[in-house]
Amino acid sequence: MSAIGHRTWAIAEGYIPPSSTGPEPEFLSHETASILNTNDEPAHVSITVYFEDREPATYQVTVEPRRTLHQRFNDLSDPEIPRGLGYASVIASDVPIVVQHTRLDSRQAENALLSTIAHPITGSSGEH
Amino acid sequence: MSAIGHRTWAIAEGYIPPSSTGPEPEFLSHETASILNTNDEPAHVSITVYFEDREPATYQVTVEPRRTLHQRFNDLSDPEIPRGLGYASVIASDVPIVVQHTRLDSRQAENALLSTIAHPITGSSGEH
Amino acid sequence: MSAIGHRTWAIAEGYIPPSSTGPEPEFLSHETASILNTNDEPAHVSITVYFEDREPATYQVTVEPRRTLHQRFNDLSDPEIPRGLGYASVIASDVPIVVQHTRLDSRQAENALLSTIAHPITGSSGEH
Amino acid sequence: MSAIGHRTWAIAEGYIPPSSTGPEPEFLSHETASILNTNDEPAHVSITVYFEDREPATYQVTVEPRRTLHQRFNDLSDPEIPRGLGYASVIASDVPIVVQHTRLDSRQAENALLSTIAHPITGSSGEH
Repeated sequence: MSAIGHRTWAIAEGYIPPSSTGPEPEFLSHETASILNTNDEPAHVSITVYFEDREPATYQVTVEPRRTLHQRFNDLSDPEIPRGLGYASVIASDVPIVVQHTRLDSRQAENALLSTIAHPITGSSGEH
Repeated sequence: MSAIGHRTWAIAEGYIPPSSTGPEPEFLSHETASILNTNDEPAHVSITVYFEDREPATYQVTVEPRRTLHQRFNDLSDPEIPRGLGYASVIASDVPIVVQHTRLDSRQAENALLSTIAHPITGSSGEH
Repeated sequence: MSAIGHRTWAIAEGYIPPSSTGPEPEFLSHETASILNTNDEPAHVSITVYFEDREPATYQVTVEPRRTLHQRFNDLSDPEIPRGLGYASVIASDVPIVVQHTRLDSRQAENALLSTIAHPITGSSGEH
Repeated sequence: MSAIGHRTWAIAEGYIPPSSTGPEPEFLSHETASILNTNDEPAHVSITVYFEDREPATYQVTVEPRRTLHQRFNDLSDPEIPRGLGYASVIASDVPIVVQHTRLDSRQAENALLSTIAHPITGSSGEH
């Protein structure tokens, strides 16, 4: 099977709810970028986070060969992503990956969930 | 990093619930277009809203360089978008952007969330 | 603005919950195909519904120029779509349209929502 | 109508909640891959599941001509997919199909739903 996915993805929606209800870590309000690396080599991934009122910040993660990584935006640090404010992200990798975005909102007693495929940036895809 | 996104996006689903439960503005029922502008220049964006029973209306917003704007449809005025009725939208920019659509429905005690990537209009994209 | 969208779309997920809670029609469990027609002519649209255990059925709707139609699958008749069973759909138009899919599940006291952009069938698009 | 869809799809997000509330099987927490086969021949489909900490596993299903199959990941066995852990999947078919991903989370009294179109892998599509 040849390389699956794209090298760059964008997620326009981002929001970590500022409060939570229920036992952690499962029911902590969070946002996740699910990253799939089907390659036989590691994916070196940079996550650039854009804000409404300040300059972007960039984070680095690695996804092992033939593995998925479900990276919580909550766990990105230096700087930490502010809770309760809008943000967006661009996810770039040195090998093709697939990216999906999920939020669990547990501010109230019953959870709300959303999920969206990230937007593949065709122009920077390796396989086109 | 070169320009990311497309110049035109469409969202076929639109509905602002007519009622809400919980403290505002966080828990006000709302729909949002999240717009990401990764360019080094401002994005001048027009939002054209289509209805079920009247002619379309157009609104203008600006997204600053390297910033995201989470624009609530609730806040568009002149004319205001009717609550409790279906609508759709086309979002056009002078530079490439990425657009995602989210609804928080707080009509009942516990929230419901939905989110969807907008549909990129390939033919009017700058980078193809 | 030139034609926006595609002539054929597919929605792989379909399920009308068999029960509801709350006042109708807003809180009736339902699935909707939101269709946007930005053209200056009507869109004549056929919705073909595929099932798990029987042959497909086809329905016809019209979307007026510069209008959106939020068509509930619940309201399609002859034959009616069975509640509580999985289905899928292909939506074809004589002019380019944009299609999105939404479900409101009100089987329990608090609603759950999901929404997904339909899958555009590139090969049959008018603008490519 | 010619073949609709792609031969390979990817879903980066996967998570079967480890607990449920409400009558089964409707309210059992589950994840589903909804597959649409519009062809006049069967679709022979392989589902490869990627994990965070072990090698991928592959499963085989068949979707009959002009039918949809809503395959629960819960029902895949040998090996069973672990509950409460992240996974991802690649779905490959010998004929074009359309794939969508849905989760029902019934860990709490009120359900949460999410749904996302899978990511079509353009390079392996039959109709391009």
